[in-house]
Amino acid sequence: MSDFKLFIGNKNYSSWSFRPWIALVEKDIPFEEVLVPFDFENGNPEFRDFSPSMKVPVLKHGELTVWDSLAILEYLADVFPGKGLWPEDRSARAHARAISAEMHSGFGALRQACPMNMRRPVETLAVNDRVKSDVARILSIWSECLEASGGPFLFGSFTIADAMYAPVVSRFETYSLTDHAVFATYRAAMTGTKAWREWRTDALKETWIVAEDEI
Amino acid sequence: MSDFKLFIGNKNYSSWSFRPWIALVEKDIPFEEVLVPFDFENGNPEFRDFSPSMKVPVLKHGELTVWDSLAILEYLADVFPGKGLWPEDRSARAHARAISAEMHSGFGALRQACPMNMRRPVETLAVNDRVKSDVARILSIWSECLEASGGPFLFGSFTIADAMYAPVVSRFETYSLTDHAVFATYRAAMTGTKAWREWRTDALKETWIVAEDEI
Repeated sequence: MSDFKLFIGNKNYSSWSFRPWIALVEKDIPFEEVLVPFDFENGNPEFRDFSPSMKVPVLKHGELTVWDSLAILEYLADVFPGKGLWPEDRSARAHARAISAEMHSGFGALRQACPMNMRRPVETLAVNDRVKSDVARILSIWSECLEASGGPFLFGSFTIADAMYAPVVSRFETYSLTDHAVFATYRAAMTGTKAWREWRTDALKETWIVAEDEI
Repeated sequence: MSDFKLFIGNKNYSSWSFRPWIALVEKDIPFEEVLVPFDFENGNPEFRDFSPSMKVPVLKHGELTVWDSLAILEYLADVFPGKGLWPEDRSARAHARAISAEMHSGFGALRQACPMNMRRPVETLAVNDRVKSDVARILSIWSECLEASGGPFLFGSFTIADAMYAPVVSRFETYSLTDHAVFATYRAAMTGTKAWREWRTDALKETWIVAEDEI
Protein backbone atom coordinates (compact mmCIF):
# COMPACT_ATOMS: atom_id res chain seq x y z
CA MET A 1 0.00 0.00 0.00
CA SER A 2 1.41 3.35 -1.03
CA ASP A 3 1.51 6.53 1.03
CA PHE A 4 0.54 8.57 -2.01
CA LYS A 5 -3.00 9.00 -3.27
CA LEU A 6 -3.52 10.85 -6.54
CA PHE A 7 -7.03 12.14 -7.19
CA ILE A 8 -7.81 12.62 -10.86
CA GLY A 9 -10.97 13.49 -12.77
CA ASN A 10 -10.83 11.42 -15.90
CA LYS A 11 -8.31 9.91 -18.28
CA ASN A 12 -9.66 10.89 -21.66
CA TYR A 13 -10.13 14.60 -21.06
CA SER A 14 -8.28 15.70 -17.94
CA SER A 15 -4.98 17.03 -19.23
CA TRP A 16 -4.13 18.48 -15.81
CA SER A 17 -4.58 15.06 -14.17
CA PHE A 18 -2.34 13.46 -16.80
CA ARG A 19 0.71 15.54 -15.83
CA PRO A 20 1.47 14.20 -12.33
CA TRP A 21 0.17 10.76 -13.29
CA ILE A 22 2.62 10.28 -16.16
CA ALA A 23 5.51 11.50 -13.96
CA LEU A 24 4.61 9.17 -11.09
CA VAL A 25 4.36 6.16 -13.38
CA GLU A 26 7.42 7.05 -15.47
CA LYS A 27 9.51 7.52 -12.30
CA ASP A 28 8.28 4.28 -10.70
CA ILE A 29 6.79 6.03 -7.66
CA PRO A 30 4.04 3.80 -6.24
CA PHE A 31 0.70 5.55 -5.65
CA GLU A 32 -2.96 4.81 -5.33
CA GLU A 33 -5.11 6.32 -8.08
CA VAL A 34 -8.52 7.70 -7.08
CA LEU A 35 -10.65 8.63 -10.07
CA VAL A 36 -13.56 10.91 -9.19
CA PRO A 37 -15.49 11.62 -12.40
CA PHE A 38 -16.24 15.24 -13.27
CA ASP A 39 -19.79 16.42 -12.66
CA PHE A 40 -19.69 19.75 -14.47
CA GLU A 41 -23.43 20.21 -14.44
CA ASN A 42 -23.43 20.43 -10.67
CA GLY A 43 -20.02 22.02 -10.16
CA ASN A 44 -18.26 18.82 -9.06
CA PRO A 45 -19.69 18.74 -5.53
CA GLU A 46 -17.77 15.54 -4.71
CA PHE A 47 -14.49 17.38 -5.17
CA ARG A 48 -15.26 19.25 -1.95
CA ASP A 49 -14.25 16.16 0.04
CA PHE A 50 -10.65 16.16 -1.13
CA SER A 51 -9.79 19.30 -3.13
CA PRO A 52 -9.31 22.75 -1.54
CA SER A 53 -9.41 24.39 -4.97
CA MET A 54 -12.33 22.23 -6.19
CA LYS A 55 -10.11 21.12 -9.03
CA VAL A 56 -8.08 18.05 -9.93
CA PRO A 57 -5.42 16.75 -9.65
CA VAL A 58 -4.83 16.53 -5.91
CA LEU A 59 -2.11 14.53 -4.16
CA LYS A 60 -2.51 13.28 -0.60
CA HIS A 61 0.59 12.18 1.26
CA GLY A 62 -0.33 11.20 4.79
CA GLU A 63 -1.84 14.30 6.39
CA LEU A 64 -0.64 16.57 3.61
CA THR A 65 -2.81 17.74 0.71
CA VAL A 66 -1.10 19.23 -2.35
CA TRP A 67 -3.12 20.55 -5.25
CA ASP A 68 -2.32 21.88 -8.74
CA SER A 69 -0.38 19.84 -11.29
CA LEU A 70 2.81 21.90 -11.12
CA ALA A 71 2.86 22.14 -7.31
CA ILE A 72 2.36 18.37 -7.04
CA LEU A 73 5.27 17.80 -9.42
CA GLU A 74 7.48 20.21 -7.44
CA TYR A 75 6.54 18.35 -4.25
CA LEU A 76 7.54 15.03 -5.80
CA ALA A 77 10.88 16.58 -6.82
CA ASP A 78 11.32 17.68 -3.20
CA VAL A 79 10.51 14.23 -1.79
CA PHE A 80 12.48 12.25 -4.36
CA PRO A 81 15.63 14.23 -5.15
CA GLY A 82 17.24 11.15 -6.71
CA LYS A 83 14.53 10.56 -9.31
CA GLY A 84 15.66 13.26 -11.72
CA LEU A 85 12.29 15.01 -11.82
CA TRP A 86 14.13 18.23 -12.63
CA PRO A 87 17.44 18.46 -14.55
CA GLU A 88 20.44 18.30 -12.23
CA ASP A 89 22.19 21.34 -13.73
CA ARG A 90 20.89 24.58 -12.23
CA SER A 91 20.65 26.47 -15.49
CA ALA A 92 18.91 23.58 -17.24
CA ARG A 93 16.55 23.35 -14.26
CA ALA A 94 15.73 27.05 -14.60
CA HIS A 95 15.03 26.55 -18.29
CA ALA A 96 12.84 23.51 -17.55
CA ARG A 97 10.90 25.51 -14.99
CA ALA A 98 10.45 28.41 -17.39
CA ILE A 99 8.88 26.26 -20.10
CA SER A 100 6.81 24.35 -17.53
CA ALA A 101 5.47 27.60 -16.09
CA GLU A 102 4.81 28.97 -19.58
CA MET A 103 2.65 25.89 -20.22
CA HIS A 104 1.02 26.13 -16.80
CA SER A 105 -0.35 29.63 -17.27
CA GLY A 106 -0.43 29.98 -21.03
CA PHE A 107 -1.46 28.62 -24.41
CA GLY A 108 -5.10 29.40 -23.69
CA ALA A 109 -6.08 29.48 -27.36
CA LEU A 110 -4.76 25.96 -27.98
CA ARG A 111 -6.30 24.61 -24.80
CA GLN A 112 -9.70 26.05 -25.57
CA ALA A 113 -9.86 25.04 -29.23
CA CYS A 114 -8.25 21.61 -28.88
CA PRO A 115 -9.14 19.88 -25.61
CA MET A 116 -7.25 16.68 -24.90
CA ASN A 117 -9.50 13.88 -26.17
CA MET A 118 -7.72 10.62 -26.86
CA ARG A 119 -10.92 8.94 -28.00
CA ARG A 120 -11.54 11.42 -30.80
CA PRO A 121 -10.69 10.03 -34.25
CA VAL A 122 -7.57 11.74 -35.57
CA GLU A 123 -8.72 14.43 -37.96
CA THR A 124 -7.31 17.81 -38.95
CA LEU A 125 -9.00 20.72 -37.26
CA ALA A 126 -9.00 24.16 -38.90
CA VAL A 127 -7.69 26.51 -36.23
CA ASN A 128 -7.41 30.27 -35.90
CA ASP A 129 -4.24 32.36 -35.87
CA ARG A 130 -4.00 32.45 -32.08
CA VAL A 131 -3.93 28.65 -31.95
CA LYS A 132 -1.37 28.58 -34.78
CA SER A 133 0.77 30.99 -32.83
CA ASP A 134 0.59 28.75 -29.73
CA VAL A 135 1.57 25.74 -31.84
CA ALA A 136 4.53 27.61 -33.35
CA ARG A 137 5.75 28.74 -29.93
CA ILE A 138 5.55 25.20 -28.53
CA LEU A 139 7.46 23.79 -31.53
CA SER A 140 10.13 26.43 -30.96
CA ILE A 141 10.38 25.45 -27.25
CA TRP A 142 10.71 21.77 -28.11
CA SER A 143 13.26 22.41 -30.87
CA GLU A 144 15.48 24.49 -28.63
CA CYS A 145 15.37 21.97 -25.78
CA LEU A 146 15.92 18.87 -27.91
CA GLU A 147 18.78 20.50 -29.76
CA ALA A 148 20.49 21.53 -26.51
CA SER A 149 19.95 18.21 -24.71
CA GLY A 150 20.21 15.78 -27.61
CA GLY A 151 16.86 14.22 -26.55
CA PRO A 152 15.03 11.91 -26.49
CA PHE A 153 13.17 14.01 -23.89
CA LEU A 154 13.30 17.80 -23.57
CA PHE A 155 16.20 17.72 -21.11
CA GLY A 156 17.61 14.33 -22.03
CA SER A 157 15.84 11.98 -19.66
CA PHE A 158 12.18 12.37 -18.66
CA THR A 159 11.55 15.39 -16.39
CA ILE A 160 8.65 17.45 -15.13
CA ALA A 161 8.87 19.53 -18.30
CA ASP A 162 7.88 16.46 -20.32
CA ALA A 163 5.03 15.75 -17.91
CA MET A 164 3.76 19.30 -18.44
CA TYR A 165 3.86 18.94 -22.24
CA ALA A 166 2.53 15.36 -22.45
CA PRO A 167 -1.09 16.48 -22.98
CA VAL A 168 0.07 18.82 -25.75
CA VAL A 169 1.56 15.88 -27.63
CA SER A 170 -1.87 14.28 -27.49
CA ARG A 171 -3.59 17.45 -28.72
CA PHE A 172 -1.15 17.93 -31.62
CA GLU A 173 -1.74 14.30 -32.60
CA THR A 174 -5.53 14.25 -32.31
CA TYR A 175 -6.14 17.47 -34.25
CA SER A 176 -3.18 17.05 -36.70
CA LEU A 177 -1.88 20.47 -35.78
CA THR A 178 1.58 20.21 -37.31
CA ASP A 179 3.79 18.10 -39.56
CA HIS A 180 7.01 19.63 -38.18
CA ALA A 181 9.83 17.09 -37.82
CA VAL A 182 10.46 18.02 -34.20
CA PHE A 183 6.94 16.93 -33.33
CA ALA A 184 7.44 13.53 -34.97
CA THR A 185 10.65 13.05 -32.98
CA TYR A 186 9.27 14.18 -29.64
CA ARG A 187 6.00 12.35 -30.12
CA ALA A 188 7.89 9.09 -30.69
CA ALA A 189 9.75 9.52 -27.40
CA MET A 190 6.62 10.44 -25.45
CA THR A 191 4.24 7.83 -26.86
CA GLY A 192 6.95 5.19 -26.48
CA THR A 193 6.86 5.43 -22.69
CA LYS A 194 5.11 2.75 -20.69
CA ALA A 195 3.24 5.48 -18.78
CA TRP A 196 1.79 7.03 -21.94
CA ARG A 197 0.60 3.66 -23.25
CA GLU A 198 -1.04 2.75 -19.93
CA TRP A 199 -2.87 6.06 -19.63
CA ARG A 200 -4.02 5.94 -23.24
CA THR A 201 -5.29 2.37 -22.92
CA ASP A 202 -7.39 3.42 -19.92
CA ALA A 203 -8.61 6.59 -21.67
CA LEU A 204 -9.85 4.61 -24.66
CA LYS A 205 -11.81 2.33 -22.35
CA GLU A 206 -13.72 5.16 -20.71
CA THR A 207 -17.30 5.30 -21.83
CA TRP A 208 -18.02 8.56 -20.06
CA ILE A 209 -18.44 11.46 -22.46
CA VAL A 210 -18.88 15.19 -22.01
CA ALA A 211 -19.57 17.96 -24.46
CA GLU A 212 -16.31 19.47 -25.68
CA ASP A 213 -17.16 22.91 -24.37
CA GLU A 214 -17.24 21.53 -20.84
CA ILE A 215 -13.58 20.51 -20.70
CA MET B 1 26.85 46.37 -10.51
CA SER B 2 24.60 43.37 -10.07
CA ASP B 3 24.66 40.12 -12.04
CA PHE B 4 20.88 40.10 -12.20
CA LYS B 5 18.84 42.05 -14.73
CA LEU B 6 15.06 42.03 -14.35
CA PHE B 7 13.08 43.09 -17.41
CA ILE B 8 9.63 44.42 -16.58
CA GLY B 9 6.90 46.07 -18.64
CA ASN B 10 5.43 48.70 -16.41
CA LYS B 11 4.84 49.39 -12.74
CA ASN B 12 1.24 50.51 -12.69
CA TYR B 13 -0.32 47.68 -14.65
CA SER B 14 2.09 44.76 -14.90
CA SER B 15 1.06 42.47 -12.07
CA TRP B 16 3.31 39.69 -13.39
CA SER B 17 6.34 42.00 -13.30
CA PHE B 18 5.51 43.00 -9.73
CA ARG B 19 5.91 39.44 -8.38
CA PRO B 20 9.65 38.86 -8.84
CA TRP B 21 10.37 42.56 -8.28
CA ILE B 22 8.81 42.66 -4.80
CA ALA B 23 10.61 39.43 -3.82
CA LEU B 24 14.00 40.69 -5.03
CA VAL B 25 13.63 43.98 -3.15
CA GLU B 26 12.13 42.42 -0.02
CA LYS B 27 14.94 39.85 0.13
CA ASP B 28 17.67 42.45 -0.47
CA ILE B 29 18.93 40.80 -3.64
CA PRO B 30 20.65 43.45 -5.77
CA PHE B 31 19.49 43.65 -9.38
CA GLU B 32 19.33 46.00 -12.30
CA GLU B 33 15.80 46.92 -13.38
CA VAL B 34 15.14 47.28 -17.10
CA LEU B 35 11.72 48.72 -17.87
CA VAL B 36 10.61 48.16 -21.46
CA PRO B 37 7.17 49.73 -21.87
CA PHE B 38 4.39 47.62 -23.37
CA ASP B 39 3.48 48.34 -26.96
CA PHE B 40 0.28 46.35 -27.27
CA GLU B 41 -0.76 47.92 -30.52
CA ASN B 42 2.25 46.42 -32.28
CA GLY B 43 2.59 43.21 -30.24
CA ASN B 44 5.55 44.43 -28.15
CA PRO B 45 8.19 43.98 -30.89
CA GLU B 46 10.96 45.20 -28.55
CA PHE B 47 10.36 42.20 -26.29
CA ARG B 48 11.87 40.01 -29.01
CA ASP B 49 15.33 41.20 -27.98
CA PHE B 50 15.17 39.73 -24.49
CA SER B 51 12.08 37.54 -24.00
CA PRO B 52 11.70 34.05 -25.52
CA SER B 53 7.99 34.04 -24.65
CA MET B 54 7.46 37.67 -25.76
CA LYS B 55 6.20 38.39 -22.26
CA VAL B 56 7.51 40.02 -19.13
CA PRO B 57 9.00 39.54 -16.59
CA VAL B 58 12.34 38.08 -17.69
CA LEU B 59 15.42 37.61 -15.53
CA LYS B 60 18.91 37.54 -17.00
CA HIS B 61 21.70 36.10 -14.89
CA GLY B 62 24.93 36.11 -16.87
CA GLU B 63 24.29 33.93 -19.91
CA LEU B 64 21.08 32.51 -18.49
CA THR B 65 17.60 33.77 -19.39
CA VAL B 66 14.68 32.79 -17.15
CA TRP B 67 11.15 33.84 -17.99
CA ASP B 68 7.77 33.61 -16.25
CA SER B 69 7.16 35.09 -12.79
CA LEU B 70 6.95 31.75 -10.97
CA ALA B 71 9.96 30.20 -12.71
CA ILE B 72 12.02 33.29 -11.91
CA LEU B 73 11.03 33.06 -8.26
CA GLU B 74 11.89 29.34 -8.17
CA TYR B 75 15.27 30.15 -9.70
CA LEU B 76 15.96 32.75 -7.03
CA ALA B 77 15.03 30.18 -4.36
CA ASP B 78 17.53 27.81 -6.00
CA VAL B 79 20.32 30.40 -6.08
CA PHE B 80 19.67 31.84 -2.61
CA PRO B 81 18.69 28.92 -0.35
CA GLY B 82 19.36 31.04 2.73
CA LYS B 83 16.94 33.83 1.85
CA GLY B 84 13.78 31.98 2.91
CA LEU B 85 12.05 32.41 -0.43
CA TRP B 86 10.10 29.23 0.31
CA PRO B 87 9.14 28.00 3.80
CA GLU B 88 11.80 25.74 5.31
CA ASP B 89 9.37 23.01 6.34
CA ARG B 90 8.64 20.63 3.47
CA SER B 91 4.89 20.43 4.04
CA ALA B 92 4.57 24.21 4.40
CA ARG B 93 6.63 24.58 1.23
CA ALA B 94 4.24 22.24 -0.61
CA HIS B 95 1.30 24.30 0.64
CA ALA B 96 3.00 27.54 -0.42
CA ARG B 97 3.66 26.10 -3.87
CA ALA B 98 0.05 24.92 -4.19
CA ILE B 99 -1.41 28.37 -3.52
CA SER B 100 1.26 30.02 -5.70
CA ALA B 101 0.46 27.69 -8.58
CA GLU B 102 -3.28 28.20 -8.06
CA MET B 103 -2.68 31.94 -8.48
CA HIS B 104 -0.35 31.39 -11.41
CA SER B 105 -2.88 29.55 -13.57
CA GLY B 106 -6.16 30.67 -12.07
CA PHE B 107 -8.47 33.46 -10.97
CA GLY B 108 -9.08 34.50 -14.55
CA ALA B 109 -12.36 36.24 -13.75
CA LEU B 110 -10.73 38.49 -11.16
CA ARG B 111 -7.77 39.23 -13.35
CA GLN B 112 -9.91 40.14 -16.32
CA ALA B 113 -12.42 42.31 -14.47
CA CYS B 114 -9.99 44.01 -12.11
CA PRO B 115 -6.59 44.68 -13.68
CA MET B 116 -3.93 45.93 -11.33
CA ASN B 117 -4.00 49.71 -11.61
CA MET B 118 -2.49 51.56 -8.69
CA ARG B 119 -3.24 54.93 -10.23
CA ARG B 120 -6.99 54.33 -10.38
CA PRO B 121 -8.90 56.17 -7.65
CA VAL B 122 -10.21 53.68 -5.08
CA GLU B 123 -13.83 53.04 -5.92
CA THR B 124 -16.08 50.03 -5.50
CA LEU B 125 -16.59 48.06 -8.68
CA ALA B 126 -19.74 45.98 -9.17
CA VAL B 127 -18.49 42.51 -10.09
CA ASN B 128 -20.12 39.32 -11.33
CA ASP B 129 -20.48 36.03 -9.46
CA ARG B 130 -17.36 34.51 -10.99
CA VAL B 131 -15.25 37.36 -9.65
CA LYS B 132 -16.96 37.08 -6.26
CA SER B 133 -16.15 33.39 -6.22
CA ASP B 134 -12.48 34.15 -6.96
CA VAL B 135 -12.42 36.72 -4.14
CA ALA B 136 -13.98 34.25 -1.69
CA ARG B 137 -11.49 31.53 -2.60
CA ILE B 138 -8.53 33.89 -2.15
CA LEU B 139 -9.82 35.05 1.25
CA SER B 140 -10.15 31.41 2.27
CA ILE B 141 -6.55 30.73 1.17
CA TRP B 142 -5.24 33.72 3.13
CA SER B 143 -7.29 32.87 6.24
CA GLU B 144 -6.04 29.30 6.32
CA CYS B 145 -2.39 30.33 5.84
CA LEU B 146 -2.41 33.18 8.35
CA GLU B 147 -4.16 31.07 10.95
CA ALA B 148 -1.64 28.25 10.56
CA SER B 149 1.45 30.48 10.48
CA GLY B 150 0.40 33.25 12.84
CA GLY B 151 1.36 35.81 10.15
CA PRO B 152 2.19 38.55 9.43
CA PHE B 153 2.83 36.99 6.00
CA LEU B 154 1.15 33.87 4.64
CA PHE B 155 3.84 31.54 5.96
CA GLY B 156 5.17 33.77 8.73
CA SER B 157 7.97 35.68 7.05
CA PHE B 158 7.77 36.93 3.44
CA THR B 159 7.93 34.11 0.87
CA ILE B 160 7.25 33.58 -2.82
CA ALA B 161 3.60 32.97 -1.96
CA ASP B 162 3.33 36.59 -0.80
CA ALA B 163 5.04 37.78 -3.97
CA MET B 164 2.48 35.86 -6.03
CA TYR B 165 -0.45 37.43 -4.14
CA ALA B 166 0.95 40.99 -3.89
CA PRO B 167 -0.86 42.19 -7.03
CA VAL B 168 -4.11 40.74 -5.65
CA VAL B 169 -3.79 42.91 -2.56
CA SER B 170 -3.62 45.90 -4.88
CA ARG B 171 -6.66 44.77 -6.87
CA PHE B 172 -8.75 44.13 -3.74
CA GLU B 173 -7.80 47.61 -2.52
CA THR B 174 -8.38 49.52 -5.74
CA TYR B 175 -11.78 48.02 -6.51
CA SER B 176 -12.93 47.67 -2.84
CA LEU B 177 -13.68 44.00 -3.39
CA THR B 178 -14.02 42.94 0.25
CA ASP B 179 -14.29 44.22 3.80
CA HIS B 180 -13.24 40.87 5.30
CA ALA B 181 -11.00 41.24 8.36
CA VAL B 182 -8.35 38.91 6.94
CA PHE B 183 -7.85 41.29 4.04
CA ALA B 184 -7.31 44.25 6.37
CA THR B 185 -4.70 42.25 8.29
CA TYR B 186 -2.86 40.92 5.29
CA ARG B 187 -3.03 44.21 3.45
CA ALA B 188 -1.38 45.96 6.41
CA ALA B 189 1.52 43.49 6.33
CA MET B 190 1.95 43.72 2.56
CA THR B 191 1.62 47.48 2.15
CA GLY B 192 3.93 47.98 5.12
CA THR B 193 6.90 46.52 3.29
CA LYS B 194 9.56 48.79 1.90
CA ALA B 195 9.29 46.98 -1.43
CA TRP B 196 5.55 47.64 -1.78
CA ARG B 197 5.97 51.33 -1.00
CA GLU B 198 8.81 51.74 -3.48
CA TRP B 199 6.93 50.01 -6.30
CA ARG B 200 3.76 51.98 -5.60
CA THR B 201 5.61 55.30 -5.54
CA ASP B 202 7.07 54.53 -8.97
CA ALA B 203 3.71 53.33 -10.31
CA LEU B 204 1.99 56.56 -9.31
CA LYS B 205 4.64 58.54 -11.16
CA GLU B 206 4.10 56.76 -14.44
CA THR B 207 2.31 58.88 -16.98
CA TRP B 208 1.93 56.13 -19.50
CA ILE B 209 -1.69 54.93 -19.79
CA VAL B 210 -3.38 52.12 -21.68
CA ALA B 211 -6.99 51.21 -22.14
CA GLU B 212 -8.05 48.76 -19.44
CA ASP B 213 -8.98 46.08 -21.95
CA GLU B 214 -5.37 45.93 -23.10
CA ILE B 215 -3.93 44.75 -19.80
